Amino acid sequence: MPIRLTSHSADFNERFNAFLAMKREVSADIDASARAIVDDVARHGDAALIAATKKFDRLDVAAGGLRITLAELEGAVKACDTATLDALKFARDRIEVFHRRQLPKDERFTDAAGVELGWRWSAIEAVGLYVPGGTAAYPSSVLMNAVPAKVAGVGRVVMVVPSPDGKLNPLVLAAAQLGGVSEIYRVGGAQAVAALAYGTATIKPVAKIVGPGNAYVAAAKRLVFGKVGIDMIAGPSEVLVIADRTANPDWIAADLLAQAEHDANAQSILITDDETLANDVARAVEAQLTTLPRADIARASWNDFGAIILVKSLDESVGLADAIAAEHLEIITADPEGLSARIRNAGAIFLGAHTPEAIGDYVGGSNHVLPTARSARFSSGLGVLDFMKRTSILKCGPDQLRALGPAAMTLGKAEGLDAHARSVGLRLNLP
Amino acid sequence: MPIRLTSHSADFNERFNAFLAMKREVSADIDASARAIVDDVARHGDAALIAATKKFDRLDVAAGGLRITLAELEGAVKACDTATLDALKFARDRIEVFHRRQLPKDERFTDAAGVELGWRWSAIEAVGLYVPGGTAAYPSSVLMNAVPAKVAGVGRVVMVVPSPDGKLNPLVLAAAQLGGVSEIYRVGGAQAVAALAYGTATIKPVAKIVGPGNAYVAAAKRLVFGKVGIDMIAGPSEVLVIADRTANPDWIAADLLAQAEHDANAQSILITDDETLANDVARAVEAQLTTLPRADIARASWNDFGAIILVKSLDESVGLADAIAAEHLEIITADPEGLSARIRNAGAIFLGAHTPEAIGDYVGGSNHVLPTARSARFSSGLGVLDFMKRTSILKCGPDQLRALGPAAMTLGKAEGLDAHARSVGLRLNLP
Repeated sequence: MPIRLTSHSADFNERFNAFLAMKREVSADIDASARAIVDDVARHGDAALIAATKKFDRLDVAAGGLRITLAELEGAVKACDTATLDALKFARDRIEVFHRRQLPKDERFTDAAGVELGWRWSAIEAVGLYVPGGTAAYPSSVLMNAVPAKVAGVGRVVMVVPSPDGKLNPLVLAAAQLGGVSEIYRVGGAQAVAALAYGTATIKPVAKIVGPGNAYVAAAKRLVFGKVGIDMIAGPSEVLVIADRTANPDWIAADLLAQAEHDANAQSILITDDETLANDVARAVEAQLTTLPRADIARASWNDFGAIILVKSLDESVGLADAIAAEHLEIITADPEGLSARIRNAGAIFLGAHTPEAIGDYVGGSNHVLPTARSARFSSGLGVLDFMKRTSILKCGPDQLRALGPAAMTLGKAEGLDAHARSVGLRLNLP
Repeated sequence: MPIRLTSHSADFNERFNAFLAMKREVSADIDASARAIVDDVARHGDAALIAATKKFDRLDVAAGGLRITLAELEGAVKACDTATLDALKFARDRIEVFHRRQLPKDERFTDAAGVELGWRWSAIEAVGLYVPGGTAAYPSSVLMNAVPAKVAGVGRVVMVVPSPDGKLNPLVLAAAQLGGVSEIYRVGGAQAVAALAYGTATIKPVAKIVGPGNAYVAAAKRLVFGKVGIDMIAGPSEVLVIADRTANPDWIAADLLAQAEHDANAQSILITDDETLANDVARAVEAQLTTLPRADIARASWNDFGAIILVKSLDESVGLADAIAAEHLEIITADPEGLSARIRNAGAIFLGAHTPEAIGDYVGGSNHVLPTARSARFSSGLGVLDFMKRTSILKCGPDQLRALGPAAMTLGKAEGLDAHARSVGLRLNLP
C-alpha cells in the first residue's frame, strides 16, 4: 500500500521528513570493480575493451568490428516500423525547435572606465553518449541527449551501446541516425566509459560523457570526472501530481502508473486537498493495475514508494512540492499557472489536465533528462548549455590599467602574492 | 629548467603530448579517511563536527561557539587596512556589475500547434561556500564565490572557514561581509563539507557547495555529490601566454611568475614565434626570481612545469592553445582579437599587453574561479548560472494533446511502456 499522509495530523512533519529521507536505491559498493575496469582500459586500450566486452556482453569482437557500420545502421532503420520512425522524426523535430531557443548569446560591453568585458560560448568539441542496452534502451533518450548536443554545435557525438549476446535495438540505432550521432560503438559498461574518457586506438577520446547507465556506468563516470566532464548521475525517476476536485481520477491514476512502470524504485506522489479525489485515485490505480503489462514493476513501485498526501489547502502544497523537488510535477487544478508560479523546485512542470507527463517524455520538445531524487533543488534538466562552455574575455588599454591597477596591486600584496602586484606595477612604472 | 619545445622539431608531437599528459598533482588516496569523517558528521551532527574540529584544527569549541558572531565580524573589519578594504569594495562592485549581465531570461512561447513551452530560472535556496584556512585564504576568492550567488538571488549563503589554532584572516571575514554572506562557521575540512550537506543542529543544510579546498575537502565534495550539488574540483592553476615580437619580455616574465608563485604545481607556458623573445623572457624570469618573496615556490613551478614553445607561425598556436585548454590565456600580439577569435578552449582570455591576468584575478569584474587542468575543454568559469536552476514548462489543451498524443502513444508502446501510452489514450478516448 502507498503511504497516506494528512497534513493536519500531529505527526505530519515527522512522517513527511521520513518519507523524504526514504532511500529508494541501495548503491552497491562496486567502486573497486569499476576502478579496475577503468584502469585496465586506460592502460591497455582496445585489448582491455575487447576483453571486457567478451566477458560482460558475451560478445567476441575484433577492434575492427567495434564500430557499427553505416550498412548496419541502414539495415536497422529499414527493420523499424514506419509509424514508429515517423513518431521519432516528429519528436526529433520538436526537440530541435525547443532546444534552439536555448542557444546562449555572447556578451561584450565596455564599462565606464573603458574596460572591455564579456564572454563567448563555444561548443564542446567531442561528446560521448552512453546508451544502456537491454530493456532500458530507450530510443527517445537517444534523441534527448543527441539533439541538444547537435544544436549546441558539437562536432563529434560518439555513442556507445552494449550489445549483450550481439543484440542491438534497431530503434535505438534509428534514433541515433535521426539525432545526428557521428560514431557508434557496440560497447557498454565501465569499459565503454573508460574508452570514451581515455581513448583507445579505435575510439578517440571525448571531452564530456552524458547519458544514463547502471551502477557500473555511474561509478565509472564518477571516476573519470575531471579527466572529462560528466552529466548528472541519474537516480530513480519520480512524479508529483498536485490536483484538486476538478481533476479526473482515472487520468491521474494513469499518470502515477506511467511513472511507476519505469522501475520498482520509481516514485509517484499525489498531493490533493480533496479526500474524495484521493480515494478515487487510489481505487483507479488498483483498477488500472489489473490490465497493465508491466503491472509487477508498477505495483512494487506504488506499494513501496507511492504516496497520497492530503492537505487542507493547496497553499500547503507549495512548501511540500519544494521539499520534494520532484523530477516531474503535474499541476491539475483550477489554476495551474498560479500554483506553478509559486513553486521553485521541480525539474519540469506539466500544466493542466491535458498535459500528461508522457507528452514531455516523447514529443513535447522539452528535454526528458531531468534532475531526480530531490536534485531539482540544485540542478536543471539537460539542455544546450550542457554541451557548451563559456570563455570570459577581458581587455584593458593603458588608461584602463591605470584605473584598475592600483586596487589590484593592493589586493595582490594583501594576499602575499607579490608577483601578481609586480605584473601590474611593471606596466605602470609603480613599485 | 622549464621545458623548451620547437614545433618544427621531428619529435614535437610526441614531446608536446607528453607535456600535456604530465601530472602536476599526485592525488593522495584519502577517500577512506574523508568518508569516515563525512559519515561521522552525517550520523552524529554537531558532536562529530566539534570533535573533528578539535582534532584537526586544535580548536575547542562548543556548539554555541561555532558560528562567527556579528561582533567578531565587525571587529575583523575594523582590524583591516582601509586601503585594502577600499580595494575589496572596488572589486566587489565590479564583480557585481559583470555578473548581473549573466542573469538569464525566462522563456515562454506558443508553437504552431498551440502548445505552450518554455522554462524559468530560479535561484538555489541555500548555498555553502568553502573557504580554506591558512596561506590559501584569499579574500578575493570569497568575493568571487559569494557575489555571483547573491546576484543569482540565493537566500542563504553559508560560509565555512577553518580557524587552525583559533586563527582567522580578518580580510576573509571582511570579504564575507562585503559579499553578503549570511552565516559563517569556524569549521573546515571534510567535516565542514559534511555539515553543509547533511546539516547539524547548528548548521542547517544547503543544496549546493562551492569553493576550493585541500584533498580532504575535494574528496568530501565528491562523496556528497548527488545529495547536494558541487562546483568543479579545482586543480593547480595555469597560464598560457601567446606573444609575438611586439611583446615586452619583462612583462611576460612577470605574468608567468604571477602564475608560478601560487603553487609549486602551478604551470606557466609561453608560446611565441620569436626566438629572441623566447630567450629574453627566459632571462627575465631568472632575473625577477632573484627579488621575489615567494621565489622558492615560483622557481619550483617554473622549473618543473614551465614551458616555452617556439612555433614557426602564430597560426600553429591556435591548435596548441586548444589542446592545452588553459585556465588563463593571455594574448600579447599585434592582433590579439584576431587570434582570440580562433581559439575555442580557454577559461578566460586576457587581450593585449595591458591586460595582465592579475587584473582578472582581482578587479576586472569577471570571475577568477576558472576551469583548471585542461577542463576548459568541457567546463566554464563560475558564474550566476551555477547558483540557479532551470525548470521546464509544458502546457497542452485538448487540441494540442490531440495533435501530439498519437506520436507519444506510438513511442510509448514501442518502448514497452504501456502506461505511458494509456495516460495519453485515456484523455483522448484512444485505445
